[in-house]
Amino acid sequence: MEKFYVGVDVGGTSIKMGMFSHTGELLEKWEIPTRVDEDEQTDRILPDIAASIEEKRAEKNGNIVGIGLGIPGPVTDDGTVLKCANIHWPVFNVKEKLFDLTGVANIRVGNDANVAALGEMWKGGGRGFDSIVMVTLGTGVGGGIVLDGKIVKGTHGAAGEIGHMSVVYDETETCNCGKKGCLEQVASATGIVKEAKKFLAADDTPSTLRNIDGFTAKDVFDEAKKGDEISLKTVNRLGEYLGIALGHIACVIDPDVFIIGGGVSKAGDFLIDTIEKYYVEKTYHQCRKTPIKLATLGNSAGIYGAAKLVIPE
Amino acid sequence: MEKFYVGVDVGGTSIKMGMFSHTGELLEKWEIPTRVDEDEQTDRILPDIAASIEEKRAEKNGNIVGIGLGIPGPVTDDGTVLKCANIHWPVFNVKEKLFDLTGVANIRVGNDANVAALGEMWKGGGRGFDSIVMVTLGTGVGGGIVLDGKIVKGTHGAAGEIGHMSVVYDETETCNCGKKGCLEQVASATGIVKEAKKFLAADDTPSTLRNIDGFTAKDVFDEAKKGDEISLKTVNRLGEYLGIALGHIACVIDPDVFIIGGGVSKAGDFLIDTIEKYYVEKTYHQCRKTPIKLATLGNSAGIYGAAKLVIPE
Repeated sequence: MEKFYVGVDVGGTSIKMGMFSHTGELLEKWEIPTRVDEDEQTDRILPDIAASIEEKRAEKNGNIVGIGLGIPGPVTDDGTVLKCANIHWPVFNVKEKLFDLTGVANIRVGNDANVAALGEMWKGGGRGFDSIVMVTLGTGVGGGIVLDGKIVKGTHGAAGEIGHMSVVYDETETCNCGKKGCLEQVASATGIVKEAKKFLAADDTPSTLRNIDGFTAKDVFDEAKKGDEISLKTVNRLGEYLGIALGHIACVIDPDVFIIGGGVSKAGDFLIDTIEKYYVEKTYHQCRKTPIKLATLGNSAGIYGAAKLVIPE
Repeated sequence: MEKFYVGVDVGGTSIKMGMFSHTGELLEKWEIPTRVDEDEQTDRILPDIAASIEEKRAEKNGNIVGIGLGIPGPVTDDGTVLKCANIHWPVFNVKEKLFDLTGVANIRVGNDANVAALGEMWKGGGRGFDSIVMVTLGTGVGGGIVLDGKIVKGTHGAAGEIGHMSVVYDETETCNCGKKGCLEQVASATGIVKEAKKFLAADDTPSTLRNIDGFTAKDVFDEAKKGDEISLKTVNRLGEYLGIALGHIACVIDPDVFIIGGGVSKAGDFLIDTIEKYYVEKTYHQCRKTPIKLATLGNSAGIYGAAKLVIPE
């Protein structure tokens, strides 16, 4: 029977899955809704995953020899999740539970941001590199760090939480995390809109953004590309703080490459160029040429990285 | 014959050495002057080290089974030093050269700041921990990072260069590295004196520092402890930026512990308490309780760490 590996990326609204060959080729990907239970005692997520994998396995008449999972929260090496607020998971051992449900012994579990970084290193923008820092600019700002091919978790599972570096000294609002001045407050999709609104409210500078009802981060980038002053100011501000933050990271672990992903990264080279302009200025000379590249796997990075957790070299 | 290991810490003015038992006990430590040659082609440092080790070996009538070296510059895994400006070393393989001089095959070479971090983890303030960040507050600000027991070097040998994190946004002077706003500019011994002088020049606030001709960083701490306003302002400023920088580091690698060493750390708990006050405020909640501790090995950290490079578990 043919051997398959499965990569699973557990998100708050959907669970993405990918079936991989033993040589690491993605054969098929699909997704199922995340059915979050109110009651922490009756999780439906893992049974749903097990059932969906079994269905695909039966279709292919194959053998599942490994399952990797990325989950939205901190997790220890033995597969114990340390509470996952947005999918209502208590503290429990995901690996053991999923083994009971599937009979597959080769199971590994990682934090979703770290797992996405691993995916980008394996098959995406970080291909060919060994030590990467992935920055995900989405609703929030997340990060994943892989050093010498190994995910860095941190003592409290907080390694790679670069969205919460306190880099914005003049921030007056409070971040979701309770602090003030987090990178996320200027560089996330929500942060970008908030910052643009602040600039708009500050004076009467004409701006095309004023004509876009409920504008988004994408609108800010689109208008900036066309030369709109307020939009450019907003993009420069996020570029500056991202440049500073990447410069800090370079002084700590000096990675091979930075990979920028998440919805905001769809702004493409315009975003990268803006970050780079500030990065070069704010960074220790030895690291000034470290490449800053776009992620290429989109929202499949998670299933690639999850599969990589269990697929041998 | 008894087996010994040697740890060597190569500095700009002296070379510290330690003879260790196979169980990792420091049996004897000594130092020799660093004879730096003008000519890069005729290094006397390694021959001096080899001769000094041979002398001690003969005294003990033992067998040297491993030599570890910490050197003041970036070095690759195979022992190639990538130019060491202050001891006039060109690019060459230290390990091979020292093997030729001593006949010892088990030689490993590391950067001095990283090696000191390893030493503090093994026998000093970081004992019992596995992932530590050591910050050395001396003439400059250096750093060493050990994750899961392994030194982090970085792609360009710049991992742990935390003295050059651009954290001081309002800095007007230029750092030795060519940038503006490096942590080193406020938190090194020289930086502390410079900052205090700035505060003194700004207005006529009475200060006991005004009576100390050519005051040092130690004077600033001593006067701050006695309540001198300008000195306190200076100490708070360095504490704030160190707190911010450690907070950034926590968001990147989330270590078990921070160890503060170097001459400035002689200020003791007063310094630690000041850093901690700001660290707690500026740091992601998951890492807020990460301990900040004083280094305990003083300037022997380097020989301990160097020896640890070659002493088996």
